[in-house]
Amino acid sequence: MKRLHIELGDRGYPVWIGDNLLLRSGRLLARLGFDTPPIVVSNARVMRIHGKALVHSLQDIFGRVSMVCIGDGERFKNQATLTRIYDGLLRARAGRRSWVLAFGGGVVGDVAGFAAATFLRGIPWVVMPTTLVAQVDSSVGGKVGINLAQGKNLIGAFHQPNAVLADTTVLRTLPARELAAGLFEIVKCGAIRSKALLAYLESRLDAVMKCEPEAIERVVVDAVRIKAGVVAVDEREEGARMVLNFGHTVGHALEAATDYRRFKHGEAVAWGMVAAAGLARAAAGLTSQEEERLVSLIHRIERLPGLGRISSARVWQALQRDKKSQGGRIRMVLLSAIGRTEIVDGLDPARLRQFIAEFLKNADRHGQ
Amino acid sequence: MKRLHIELGDRGYPVWIGDNLLLRSGRLLARLGFDTPPIVVSNARVMRIHGKALVHSLQDIFGRVSMVCIGDGERFKNQATLTRIYDGLLRARAGRRSWVLAFGGGVVGDVAGFAAATFLRGIPWVVMPTTLVAQVDSSVGGKVGINLAQGKNLIGAFHQPNAVLADTTVLRTLPARELAAGLFEIVKCGAIRSKALLAYLESRLDAVMKCEPEAIERVVVDAVRIKAGVVAVDEREEGARMVLNFGHTVGHALEAATDYRRFKHGEAVAWGMVAAAGLARAAAGLTSQEEERLVSLIHRIERLPGLGRISSARVWQALQRDKKSQGGRIRMVLLSAIGRTEIVDGLDPARLRQFIAEFLKNADRHGQ
Repeated sequence: MKRLHIELGDRGYPVWIGDNLLLRSGRLLARLGFDTPPIVVSNARVMRIHGKALVHSLQDIFGRVSMVCIGDGERFKNQATLTRIYDGLLRARAGRRSWVLAFGGGVVGDVAGFAAATFLRGIPWVVMPTTLVAQVDSSVGGKVGINLAQGKNLIGAFHQPNAVLADTTVLRTLPARELAAGLFEIVKCGAIRSKALLAYLESRLDAVMKCEPEAIERVVVDAVRIKAGVVAVDEREEGARMVLNFGHTVGHALEAATDYRRFKHGEAVAWGMVAAAGLARAAAGLTSQEEERLVSLIHRIERLPGLGRISSARVWQALQRDKKSQGGRIRMVLLSAIGRTEIVDGLDPARLRQFIAEFLKNADRHGQ
Repeated sequence: MKRLHIELGDRGYPVWIGDNLLLRSGRLLARLGFDTPPIVVSNARVMRIHGKALVHSLQDIFGRVSMVCIGDGERFKNQATLTRIYDGLLRARAGRRSWVLAFGGGVVGDVAGFAAATFLRGIPWVVMPTTLVAQVDSSVGGKVGINLAQGKNLIGAFHQPNAVLADTTVLRTLPARELAAGLFEIVKCGAIRSKALLAYLESRLDAVMKCEPEAIERVVVDAVRIKAGVVAVDEREEGARMVLNFGHTVGHALEAATDYRRFKHGEAVAWGMVAAAGLARAAAGLTSQEEERLVSLIHRIERLPGLGRISSARVWQALQRDKKSQGGRIRMVLLSAIGRTEIVDGLDPARLRQFIAEFLKNADRHGQ
């Protein structure tokens, strides 16, 4: 087990990463000093597979455990689910000293964290992410929230957890696509900040994809450390945190243009990184060898859902809408080298639009 | 006009207090450096009386003004109203640089502030309180939120505004009971922290109640300064802020025991202060002269709704429920002298219960 610390002053917290942590979760959580039993928020699928191990470990330490089960999937990240969690907190007679334990993937973490952020103006919470995406991305940084019918993540808060507990053994039960989606976020971390992480992925990809304990722990730790470093200098996403959006400009637009149905988020980001690598060659001086290295690692991880029949006009519209709040200028995170980012401002919209059209047209070349 | 500053480091903000500020609001708000037009949240009653003056002043500076009108009254401080404000923000195409202007009483401020706290994980907001309670109490300190069916203020956040703009001229249009409710909060500030404020109220009560500019500005400024001083040392209500709850233990219980129908909040707090003053004589050394001074000032302000036919058992239940999160012990803010508080811990529940029963029974003596 590795223990990292997220450096956010009096809002700092530990991240425990390792195998079989579920069985030790009660004892680990006891170190945080809570004097009330947890209110666990999870979903039926996660509880069916891992619930028994968790609840046993918690009961050993805390006696009683309250449960709130929510629906599984992005469409449940909404106000109705939030109300359900509030009801669960009230049923459990939660007070200011109570705490929420979010046990599941990104949706569980986001909505349970937002419930904790707003119940009685904020109570403590701990997150035990059960997907790879959640372990390396959403569970670190304190961003919590819900979707509205009009768009994703429109409502939310920054509410740092009191701890993150990432059991890498749990990842073995993930479907292959879900694991790949998380790996793409790890690739992103390597691409923006660590040549060494990218090289490790290249050399040990099979072991990582089989979730061999040492290999998977190593890449999760590296990715969390990179994300934590960025979050520590920009807790509220006012600037530096933007580098974490590498691959997201085109990625988000692809998701929106396919109504969030064709790609998992990580897969869309993977395509977004492929596109950004191509752009970076022209606009940020990335060498074609480095571009090729990144693209081929991505394609080794998964045969991505194809880009066929996606309207270039819709992608472009979505991209512009996404960037609207920044005043119409197009600003992207690109790579000047593997491990080094450059924020490129004022990209020529006409050229970018042209690039995207060609990128979609040449989809065949991109592993379709 | 007086300008106070709330000392909260990089979350600090100015409070402007004075007469006819509405007409100058555009120019004052221009100083805050916003580069987008405000999204005004208000209600139909406030807009009918003061809307024209506000909108003119804002349009002079910001050009366009978006409006969201919400229902008037505590029963609208709920999730449906919150959704209505989110919808208004989306209609106005609000982004991270947009800002909310809450124009109304405590309900408008609480729910508009909570919308601002959670929209896009937090956007700026400014509050222009139009009731005396809101000017001296709810608009300073950053506590925002909504009620659930199960209880008041169960959901919320701490989200400091970028400025507070309190126009004392607006107070002249308030119903007498509403004005009195605010005065009780000012009496509270004097009772806990300032003998001088209490003496000023005693000598100039008529001028204050007629909202004569100099007199009303003086007491609002004093009350805000006292509240600001407490908030500055305890932004997130972890301890020191408790002194602001003087009169609230019994006050809350009286409100709950009468289903929030008989008393305005300030009136319940007024009765709560009368009760606390009685208790303080026995438990904190308040002299009977000082008790009498406080009680008679309260009764000069308003003939309070009586205490007849209130079930002592219900008051006691509500009081215990209110205190539950502190682990069953009864802890109250009492006065050791006018202007000086003492936190009294572990009050004997049996004696307190007895005291409340007698207090209710002797209601006749208390100005019924």
